[in-house]
Amino acid sequence: MIIVLEKSATKEQMDYIIERVKKLGLTPHLSSGVERTIIGVIGPEDVLRVTPLEAFPGVEKVLPVLAPYRLVSREFKPENSVIDLGKNVKIGGKKVIIMAGPCAVEGEKILKEIALCIKKQGALVLRAGAFKPRTSPYSFQGLGEEGLKYLKETGQEFGLVTVTEVMDPRHVELVARYADVLQIGARNMQNFNLLREVGATQKPILLKRGMSSTIKEWLMSAEYILSEGNFNVILCERGIRTFEDYTRNTLDVSAVPSVKQLSHLPVIVDPSHAAGRWNLVAALSKAALAAGSDGLIVEVHTHPEDAMSDGNQSLLPEKFLLMMQELKLLAKAVGREL
Amino acid sequence: MIIVLEKSATKEQMDYIIERVKKLGLTPHLSSGVERTIIGVIGPEDVLRVTPLEAFPGVEKVLPVLAPYRLVSREFKPENSVIDLGKNVKIGGKKVIIMAGPCAVEGEKILKEIALCIKKQGALVLRAGAFKPRTSPYSFQGLGEEGLKYLKETGQEFGLVTVTEVMDPRHVELVARYADVLQIGARNMQNFNLLREVGATQKPILLKRGMSSTIKEWLMSAEYILSEGNFNVILCERGIRTFEDYTRNTLDVSAVPSVKQLSHLPVIVDPSHAAGRWNLVAALSKAALAAGSDGLIVEVHTHPEDAMSDGNQSLLPEKFLLMMQELKLLAKAVGREL
Amino acid sequence: MIIVLEKSATKEQMDYIIERVKKLGLTPHLSSGVERTIIGVIGPEDVLRVTPLEAFPGVEKVLPVLAPYRLVSREFKPENSVIDLGKNVKIGGKKVIIMAGPCAVEGEKILKEIALCIKKQGALVLRAGAFKPRTSPYSFQGLGEEGLKYLKETGQEFGLVTVTEVMDPRHVELVARYADVLQIGARNMQNFNLLREVGATQKPILLKRGMSSTIKEWLMSAEYILSEGNFNVILCERGIRTFEDYTRNTLDVSAVPSVKQLSHLPVIVDPSHAAGRWNLVAALSKAALAAGSDGLIVEVHTHPEDAMSDGNQSLLPEKFLLMMQELKLLAKAVGREL
Amino acid sequence: MIIVLEKSATKEQMDYIIERVKKLGLTPHLSSGVERTIIGVIGPEDVLRVTPLEAFPGVEKVLPVLAPYRLVSREFKPENSVIDLGKNVKIGGKKVIIMAGPCAVEGEKILKEIALCIKKQGALVLRAGAFKPRTSPYSFQGLGEEGLKYLKETGQEFGLVTVTEVMDPRHVELVARYADVLQIGARNMQNFNLLREVGATQKPILLKRGMSSTIKEWLMSAEYILSEGNFNVILCERGIRTFEDYTRNTLDVSAVPSVKQLSHLPVIVDPSHAAGRWNLVAALSKAALAAGSDGLIVEVHTHPEDAMSDGNQSLLPEKFLLMMQELKLLAKAVGREL
Repeated sequence: MIIVLEKSATKEQMDYIIERVKKLGLTPHLSSGVERTIIGVIGPEDVLRVTPLEAFPGVEKVLPVLAPYRLVSREFKPENSVIDLGKNVKIGGKKVIIMAGPCAVEGEKILKEIALCIKKQGALVLRAGAFKPRTSPYSFQGLGEEGLKYLKETGQEFGLVTVTEVMDPRHVELVARYADVLQIGARNMQNFNLLREVGATQKPILLKRGMSSTIKEWLMSAEYILSEGNFNVILCERGIRTFEDYTRNTLDVSAVPSVKQLSHLPVIVDPSHAAGRWNLVAALSKAALAAGSDGLIVEVHTHPEDAMSDGNQSLLPEKFLLMMQELKLLAKAVGREL
Repeated sequence: MIIVLEKSATKEQMDYIIERVKKLGLTPHLSSGVERTIIGVIGPEDVLRVTPLEAFPGVEKVLPVLAPYRLVSREFKPENSVIDLGKNVKIGGKKVIIMAGPCAVEGEKILKEIALCIKKQGALVLRAGAFKPRTSPYSFQGLGEEGLKYLKETGQEFGLVTVTEVMDPRHVELVARYADVLQIGARNMQNFNLLREVGATQKPILLKRGMSSTIKEWLMSAEYILSEGNFNVILCERGIRTFEDYTRNTLDVSAVPSVKQLSHLPVIVDPSHAAGRWNLVAALSKAALAAGSDGLIVEVHTHPEDAMSDGNQSLLPEKFLLMMQELKLLAKAVGREL
Repeated sequence: MIIVLEKSATKEQMDYIIERVKKLGLTPHLSSGVERTIIGVIGPEDVLRVTPLEAFPGVEKVLPVLAPYRLVSREFKPENSVIDLGKNVKIGGKKVIIMAGPCAVEGEKILKEIALCIKKQGALVLRAGAFKPRTSPYSFQGLGEEGLKYLKETGQEFGLVTVTEVMDPRHVELVARYADVLQIGARNMQNFNLLREVGATQKPILLKRGMSSTIKEWLMSAEYILSEGNFNVILCERGIRTFEDYTRNTLDVSAVPSVKQLSHLPVIVDPSHAAGRWNLVAALSKAALAAGSDGLIVEVHTHPEDAMSDGNQSLLPEKFLLMMQELKLLAKAVGREL
Repeated sequence: MIIVLEKSATKEQMDYIIERVKKLGLTPHLSSGVERTIIGVIGPEDVLRVTPLEAFPGVEKVLPVLAPYRLVSREFKPENSVIDLGKNVKIGGKKVIIMAGPCAVEGEKILKEIALCIKKQGALVLRAGAFKPRTSPYSFQGLGEEGLKYLKETGQEFGLVTVTEVMDPRHVELVARYADVLQIGARNMQNFNLLREVGATQKPILLKRGMSSTIKEWLMSAEYILSEGNFNVILCERGIRTFEDYTRNTLDVSAVPSVKQLSHLPVIVDPSHAAGRWNLVAALSKAALAAGSDGLIVEVHTHPEDAMSDGNQSLLPEKFLLMMQELKLLAKAVGREL
């Protein structure tokens, strides 16, 4: 950590800071120049982070040197993590994993219809929500446990891994009983108690990026899960909130290679929520794959007009088919399998 | 709701949409021009919102006409809501309410020291966190129930209303037992199950705006609480996330008069989290009050250097004193009391 | 255009608006519902845009129906525009065009060295700035006309199309004399007099997106150029400004397919300015190409350590070589040529 | 400047960097810790800024220590600058300066009508555009020199200082002949050649903040003007672009006290462009004044319905009158005059 002193800082202020740093068991390095004096503090920054150095008289600013996360970092684990999702599906290796399905479980019959469709095209994971976070209290909120049952049955019938969102720490045990992978939605990326609860399971966790979260904060949320002992975390970029309103969110495709540099965890992309328009989904899926994404999670619906949520961004089976054909060619060109 | 058809939309597509609208029990109004045909649908938009009209063939875009919230709107209740916080403190009327205190309850003695200080300057509400949402799993997470006990005792001893954050639906009953006002933090503004739980109490709820939430989404989150029967909601603007990094967040001071136009609920401002620097807090507090804020929630600490969180943005007692003197003059000038 | 009246709007207010609309030579369509009355106005929206309808008493809001641009739109010209850059290079067709080179012309020798390197790898266009927009008045501002001369010579010697920025309406004629393609930088996207000046030439114009410009505003800036009679516009996405600071800007890869839907103009991507880090450039280039980009403009430097600007984001020749090999495979997989 | 080395940096890489730093005439200070080695470089950072240290092998990141601006900084000039606008009006002192008028000069008669109205309420500066930056090439672009003539005449007749925008370096001499204060609009904040041209005059310059410019960039643009010898710069916050779309822009009220801390230059606020809605202008004006703004620039129009631009955000005379009464009370309460 670097402590930059104000030009007008007094010797007393400087000495006081140096004393405090030493009391924390750290070693300060002083560098004085014409314009400024800076104090470099080498050592575990955690100790310093809890000390509000910027509030000290004479301090202009404090510059952190180390990243605040550990377990999720490439420094901690240089090689890529490959995570077992069950049913012989592993993510983080050469194979690109396609997760697809409706936004919400709407009923048994329609779910199976969709599962059949995505299975045929090569998707290995079925996505569908039983608990839905909705902006309006008057919107459809999901079928709850009934939905989880349909999801589990459908996953078993079609040999598909299942992923579904858990929104409430009280539901973690319930959802974990039915689903193969637990999803933490964008709105809950910093629901720290929920992160701890899913960290206490050994289930694979799909951690969506919050819509205004930096990459650093996203990795810190993953750190919560790993710090509880669960290393099975898959990161999911799903678009961030910006001024541009042509798309529902702005897909931050740079996050894919950035996360790959910073962390050993697999990262996938959700083009459907990023775009908010079905007719951009194929282009964004290809971009994600080309940028190094380990997988995709895509909304597919056989009757989007009747979908109980997010119908606007769901692909029809024939569009999904076309996209999968394109993705297969693309995967090969970038040294992946699909 | 207005459905704008594509220039190339066919008669069949148009007829199909009209038929669907009618089936929903609504009346479509057709207007055809040279460039476009539009279908105006007058009636309850909720029914339409669940129908993904943008996914229909021939539809270019859909423009909502009505606001999606009801109970929180000025149309629903034209006069300002005045909310009773207990201990003879009411918010939403002429009197500006100052809430102050440390970021976290750190101990009994220090809390009482701070309570005494803010009480003397005219604050009526003591703020302090027992459960702290922290970006890092390795940071101080709050004292939990022990902290709640200190808070309650201190509130009683000094005759101060107490406000503290609740982060987990499992803790609502516990926190409600100790605190006068329950705070929903920015990170939980769309933790819908938590909103429902606090909506099921009759406690006053301080609902912070999410750091990337629009005013509309913020009002929808308030709507969740009201829709459960709890109308005692106070909104709190605390800065939004933008590209500017000189301040921790960007205080959206326009949100104050905007919310006042759209809703009957009281609105306050948190200048400390917005600025992230103590030396901007007074200026932002004055701006908030001048813009029509019903109150302020400010971080004050007698020993910010030793604060266990947010020390950088806490005011020292002498700075708080100066600010309160300025605010009293200002309040009078804008027709308020303090 | 849709005029939504306030719930409390009076008959007089409504009649007055209708009268005004009629005076403008347009036909209002009235639709009255329980909650709101709306007035649909079908016809040329330009006439209405200059009338501040939202300022009229009784008006709640005004919703535009038509896009504000014409000449750049796909409705105006359904097929893709293919633009001739000279020296047998055309952009907008099947062939992906790679533009590469240093940020700035720093000298004749180094420019030729870089030109040779990019030429060998298949780039067809040489980019380099002679007039540099720099945040600081104390930074290197470019070699001016001397730089333009080196650029022209180098382009001729290696058979490369040249593209360089023009920042000042007074320099358009000068720059047009030396360069094949004129670039409008992000900071000048809404320098409307400059747009008019380049619109008055027949040179191909590379129009970068402003760092906080919406897609709509970007197309409106292109419209300025086309409206002066110059249809040779190539759009360039170069990252937008968001809260994320890991990258210099956030590449809005969705802008590529979005622009392709809305406009007939070719669109390329600048991964170097978007990322601000050379080690993300290859991943973003692949993403851009997969998303449908018609080309790339990439910073390449043989001695980035000595580059006079943007050295951090420049590719070394060996990295550029590797990237070009990957892009060739990828181009084929997405049905393009390189 | 602090150079943070990668954990894996070799001794050779480190030595090479140290050698390069020394060659630049600077002194490196080495601090080695368990986790990282850092090199502090004390001295003029300008020399280092042009060296792309982040591109050097072994470098993880580079942290600047000093602000990049000089002449505009409080370090350079600790006391507030008071700028003479002519006609006995000075800005930057105790007196708050109100600038008001229509968006554009639309004609002689209407301009005088508005001038009379604002004069009566205590405004000292008349604002009105003769050259208008419009998003659409099809919108009204201003009356040009004819407008400037009306503006000058009106200013003389009513004893009002005049301020008007200059958009083109070719027009600086012309506009300077007619107007007292030259405005650089938000879209031209980084039109560096225009900044140089107005810097070469001795006219007071009103420099609006770009809609996505950081405070630092804004100060750097002011530095361009001062570095040409013109120290008469007034900064103007006019709202920044964020995700919130209820207002046209988001007024960054924190920018006012922030700029006051960093710079000696006066700063004013434009509530009209920030809000984009006349009914928020009074609240934002009060907030600006309470936060320490040295003045306001407000759109006022006697017939907003007929305004040729920005009618939605213009105040009617009676609203302006009410606001001025409120501002007078407020100014006194915060120790200012109006």
